[in-house]
Amino acid sequence: MSNVWGKKISLSIFGESHGECIGIVMNGIKAGFKVDMEYIKRNMLRRLAGMNNLSTQRKEEDKIEILSGIFNGMTTGAPICMIIRNNDVKSKDYDKLKYIMRPSHSDFSANVKYGGFNDYRGGGHFSGRLTAPLVFAGAIAKQILEQQNIFIGSHIKQVGNVFDSNFDFVNLSKECFDMLLKKELPMINSSKVDKVKEEILLAKQEGDSVGGIIECGIIGVNAGIGEPFFNSIESTIAQLAFSIPAVKGIEFGMGFGFSDKRGSQCKDEYYIENGRVKAYENNNGGILGGITNGMPIIFRTVIKPTPSISKEQRTVNIDAMENTVLNLCGRHDPCIVQRAVVVVECIGALSVLELL
Amino acid sequence: MSNVWGKKISLSIFGESHGECIGIVMNGIKAGFKVDMEYIKRNMLRRLAGMNNLSTQRKEEDKIEILSGIFNGMTTGAPICMIIRNNDVKSKDYDKLKYIMRPSHSDFSANVKYGGFNDYRGGGHFSGRLTAPLVFAGAIAKQILEQQNIFIGSHIKQVGNVFDSNFDFVNLSKECFDMLLKKELPMINSSKVDKVKEEILLAKQEGDSVGGIIECGIIGVNAGIGEPFFNSIESTIAQLAFSIPAVKGIEFGMGFGFSDKRGSQCKDEYYIENGRVKAYENNNGGILGGITNGMPIIFRTVIKPTPSISKEQRTVNIDAMENTVLNLCGRHDPCIVQRAVVVVECIGALSVLELL
Amino acid sequence: MSNVWGKKISLSIFGESHGECIGIVMNGIKAGFKVDMEYIKRNMLRRLAGMNNLSTQRKEEDKIEILSGIFNGMTTGAPICMIIRNNDVKSKDYDKLKYIMRPSHSDFSANVKYGGFNDYRGGGHFSGRLTAPLVFAGAIAKQILEQQNIFIGSHIKQVGNVFDSNFDFVNLSKECFDMLLKKELPMINSSKVDKVKEEILLAKQEGDSVGGIIECGIIGVNAGIGEPFFNSIESTIAQLAFSIPAVKGIEFGMGFGFSDKRGSQCKDEYYIENGRVKAYENNNGGILGGITNGMPIIFRTVIKPTPSISKEQRTVNIDAMENTVLNLCGRHDPCIVQRAVVVVECIGALSVLELL
Amino acid sequence: MSNVWGKKISLSIFGESHGECIGIVMNGIKAGFKVDMEYIKRNMLRRLAGMNNLSTQRKEEDKIEILSGIFNGMTTGAPICMIIRNNDVKSKDYDKLKYIMRPSHSDFSANVKYGGFNDYRGGGHFSGRLTAPLVFAGAIAKQILEQQNIFIGSHIKQVGNVFDSNFDFVNLSKECFDMLLKKELPMINSSKVDKVKEEILLAKQEGDSVGGIIECGIIGVNAGIGEPFFNSIESTIAQLAFSIPAVKGIEFGMGFGFSDKRGSQCKDEYYIENGRVKAYENNNGGILGGITNGMPIIFRTVIKPTPSISKEQRTVNIDAMENTVLNLCGRHDPCIVQRAVVVVECIGALSVLELL
Repeated sequence: MSNVWGKKISLSIFGESHGECIGIVMNGIKAGFKVDMEYIKRNMLRRLAGMNNLSTQRKEEDKIEILSGIFNGMTTGAPICMIIRNNDVKSKDYDKLKYIMRPSHSDFSANVKYGGFNDYRGGGHFSGRLTAPLVFAGAIAKQILEQQNIFIGSHIKQVGNVFDSNFDFVNLSKECFDMLLKKELPMINSSKVDKVKEEILLAKQEGDSVGGIIECGIIGVNAGIGEPFFNSIESTIAQLAFSIPAVKGIEFGMGFGFSDKRGSQCKDEYYIENGRVKAYENNNGGILGGITNGMPIIFRTVIKPTPSISKEQRTVNIDAMENTVLNLCGRHDPCIVQRAVVVVECIGALSVLELL
Repeated sequence: MSNVWGKKISLSIFGESHGECIGIVMNGIKAGFKVDMEYIKRNMLRRLAGMNNLSTQRKEEDKIEILSGIFNGMTTGAPICMIIRNNDVKSKDYDKLKYIMRPSHSDFSANVKYGGFNDYRGGGHFSGRLTAPLVFAGAIAKQILEQQNIFIGSHIKQVGNVFDSNFDFVNLSKECFDMLLKKELPMINSSKVDKVKEEILLAKQEGDSVGGIIECGIIGVNAGIGEPFFNSIESTIAQLAFSIPAVKGIEFGMGFGFSDKRGSQCKDEYYIENGRVKAYENNNGGILGGITNGMPIIFRTVIKPTPSISKEQRTVNIDAMENTVLNLCGRHDPCIVQRAVVVVECIGALSVLELL
Repeated sequence: MSNVWGKKISLSIFGESHGECIGIVMNGIKAGFKVDMEYIKRNMLRRLAGMNNLSTQRKEEDKIEILSGIFNGMTTGAPICMIIRNNDVKSKDYDKLKYIMRPSHSDFSANVKYGGFNDYRGGGHFSGRLTAPLVFAGAIAKQILEQQNIFIGSHIKQVGNVFDSNFDFVNLSKECFDMLLKKELPMINSSKVDKVKEEILLAKQEGDSVGGIIECGIIGVNAGIGEPFFNSIESTIAQLAFSIPAVKGIEFGMGFGFSDKRGSQCKDEYYIENGRVKAYENNNGGILGGITNGMPIIFRTVIKPTPSISKEQRTVNIDAMENTVLNLCGRHDPCIVQRAVVVVECIGALSVLELL
Repeated sequence: MSNVWGKKISLSIFGESHGECIGIVMNGIKAGFKVDMEYIKRNMLRRLAGMNNLSTQRKEEDKIEILSGIFNGMTTGAPICMIIRNNDVKSKDYDKLKYIMRPSHSDFSANVKYGGFNDYRGGGHFSGRLTAPLVFAGAIAKQILEQQNIFIGSHIKQVGNVFDSNFDFVNLSKECFDMLLKKELPMINSSKVDKVKEEILLAKQEGDSVGGIIECGIIGVNAGIGEPFFNSIESTIAQLAFSIPAVKGIEFGMGFGFSDKRGSQCKDEYYIENGRVKAYENNNGGILGGITNGMPIIFRTVIKPTPSISKEQRTVNIDAMENTVLNLCGRHDPCIVQRAVVVVECIGALSVLELL
């Protein structure tokens, strides 16, 4: 129950950060689809750690091993199983953490849930590493969608106090997505890239971390996709989005911005253009009644600052049941927003593919 | 697929705003539970329209008919089916809307999805009326949880430009919830109640509507509840929350407030008190790794201003496929935030019961 | 969990034999389907009790009330809820049975499961009456399938020691199904109809009951339908078939007849005819690897003799926890095989529609 | 959707007979369970091919690799992923079969379903080899159940024209199961073991195969387990049983034997013994209304003769779309009944664990 998602497309995720491997079983991909492995690798590279000084120095190659479901480069229709071996593991770093609960991590809640039997090394099954299999699955979903002229892109909307421009809700285009992929950091406003880097490096320098917001857009989805209630576009994307460790909020279209608005300020009025219904605005992010209206799908997720910081923190030793302090010295990300950008795209792609 | 939710507790919702009735089938409630019908009615009354001048004048009694699953006042273990007949229906008001797509409503997306066969009267199956069965089910869930000393409460955090205080994330109490229930509008800061009423009445007077934010707290849930990934507390609550028409965003704990924070500013450090692990702060809203840590669960949803306003709006006639204008004259809510408060509590209760 | 079935088409069943009503919520039926209510009624009539002296004298009209999902005679795409009020209820007959467990009924197992809170009257939620909503849903499925030239028919293969001929596994036709519907009892061999009636009336006369076998055929399903493993045609039909009270076995094609056969005796060899792949034989009942091969789907279910008999039986009073004897005097079916024929067709139709 | 099973315990199966590996992801096993790997291996050995002259000479070691979910010999609560590499693969044997549809195999139905992209080598994802992961998962389930004093055993009820005695439906015991495990072939009547071997070797000698029946018993399950309708014990076991390639029928208790019985001949009358309710007989196989009544659970599955025989068969070449003949010369099982015995036990164990 806990690690299986989806009805048409189903995902079954497994693995621990410092175990043998991490991986995923993906069901429901039609047979005869030619998988572009280079495309998948490019997506996985965007998530990879150790690429520059903005992220953890843990060097993971994230080498994909396909165990089933792809034969002669084509999907067979049978479940696709993919694993990534864990290589650059320094589990020793975590030995002393067995009973020391890192604040704001899953250590304590997982310890209680699993009676202390969970693999505590590097967060175990709760590690951000588990997003790598999601990117694998999502990259396949993205490829399939692209063949149907559905495109997905994301940018860093905010890191700390640096803000990017918003997507153009009405006229969002593939060109914009392509442009973002070419930048050092995916931001619309190029002048903000260096400011974000500064913000991250400053946090790093201070042994601290910083949060941010990712904005994702999906274009090319026809009107009429999604289900009312429990399987709306919003419900589906949200359920998946909260599977990304560190995501603590999601909003669609104007989102929390609706709270101080009047109805007259955020009506998405319709008009007809070339025999098609269009909207002048897109405050609802392309979704009404849980179903697409043909406008770009827009959502934003907030990424909390990673709780692994080098500052001393008060916590508890649950073996001794006593108060203690914690000084972390592992290899940590000062910011994971830039690495999560592709993950957010991927859960968007998986959600749309599930509901198409 | 579209209208069924849950594995342990399952909900199957049905009905249309102007059809015969609306209703729900609820599965998975243990046998032998004494249902307090007065408790359910009190919860449903909180959602009811036509109670005062702040909401629509459609007078719906929302009379509950239990069709199955309750025998001699006790649950039998078999599915509970409940219906509410639609009484004060003025379907004529909607006849002219068959081909006129109300902006920011589900009319157009539903029309495309269902090929024009959807019941368009009053939003049909997409109507906010469908939250009444959710409140019925949620009130049963709340009762069951209360027997386990789990309590849920919500307040209006914001309407337009009026803001209430936040819940006390660390020391949230049943007393606070009880206090909220006694007020004319559920707000912590009593001095803001009249300001919210003014805000709503001003919008009403101008034929407009206004949005807001609801904050919900759940206390008494032990650490260790929830699943990693797709069935986390956050994923589960979010999936249900977006089933409430008008909800366009959800955040947990500090939520979008994490975006400009440093890790050192939002660490929830632990300490031991009376042999139990507690946290000094609760920025994560009681959830880490998707699993409860024993602190109060805190989440907020944003409610968009209802799109039914009395101002002229540009739209399309999809039968004639031509541009037109729309002047709505039905009985509309200037604000649904106050009516949605109990709905938000109910989806919180259902989520927790599902994961316990 | 317990009363919900299906992913594409989903069913949520509810009600008790002597409660307010029985009913079903059906999801996943496409919008714009014109429902032929007379067709549904004809199917429900085939299941109806009290039609002749072969079944119980409980007179239930089984009047259908559509509560949602059908508007102007067409499906809307929203969930279809249907209820049947319980009319001819003589609950008094069951009062004395509250603590007396009827042998071979669900009384004892249900009592333990639900801690005695289950509605015990007439079997409550376990009553054969709950197959009426299945027939409603199945009749809709049958109609939809017929538009795609998929037809379903069943006959009484056996009652007691009277045997009908088998379906022609290879050349099964709609004409055969039509012919069966015109007979007093659906049997291929007309000369056996009176013998079955004798068998049933003899059992009735002796206050006893008798079992039998129903054979169902589905024609017109293309090759390639179904899923390997857990959602094969066989798994899907079997899961539904065991939801029919009294079904204790199911077999496909040659079924248990395979046990004493050699591989060379039951090979379904292929040949090409008019550019299509066909098989000379159909021992596998149209299903290989869980997936259709284009030949008629054939399955048989065994119906146990109803345990409600007028003979004295030894049993227990679970309130007093003492041995006792039971003399039933309600209105019972001496045989339910003839009433179950249409139910078996309906679960076949629902299964195929789910997997198409 | 197609390869995922279960809600509490969930299985996600993957792999192809001649691909990289076969495997399974198993969810929902509680943390802290000490996995007895020797126990698992003993169970897997019972399914293994090439053990003697009764089965195929393909030598598969079926070496288990645990990829996740087990840490220091204990379950962590996270998903357990296990793979078995395919070693003794002679894929060349299958090259010529790409377009030649083996009669009574899944070749044709799978080819149509997957548009010819399925891995056709050795049946691909439809191979009987996929039962090895089921045995792995089932052996874990069996271990967990044994700790709760629930035991499962099976015997060969029939092979061709040789019949074993039935289980004692009422007094089935662990001793009986232990006894069966010690025999060369699991049969109650020792004198029949040699006859079964003869039957199999005779079929082998003639290049033919032979079918049979497996009877499974589960003891120690309390009354009150299972759900009515779609998740009854019968529905759950049946859904899983038909996931075993070659199973074409399943029956519970007296099963198809009910068809010529009177109600008075198969009543399971109750009595009280030592304060517990028991039944004199167990014609219903321990299940009433889909729920256990505390008596042994009894079911039988029929295993069709494997369609891989060395006799010439007529079939088609779907590339050339012409009739042809097929002479198989791979390494085939003359009978798979003896290898399927443990698989049947395992699906019984998984079903019970799911519903407990």
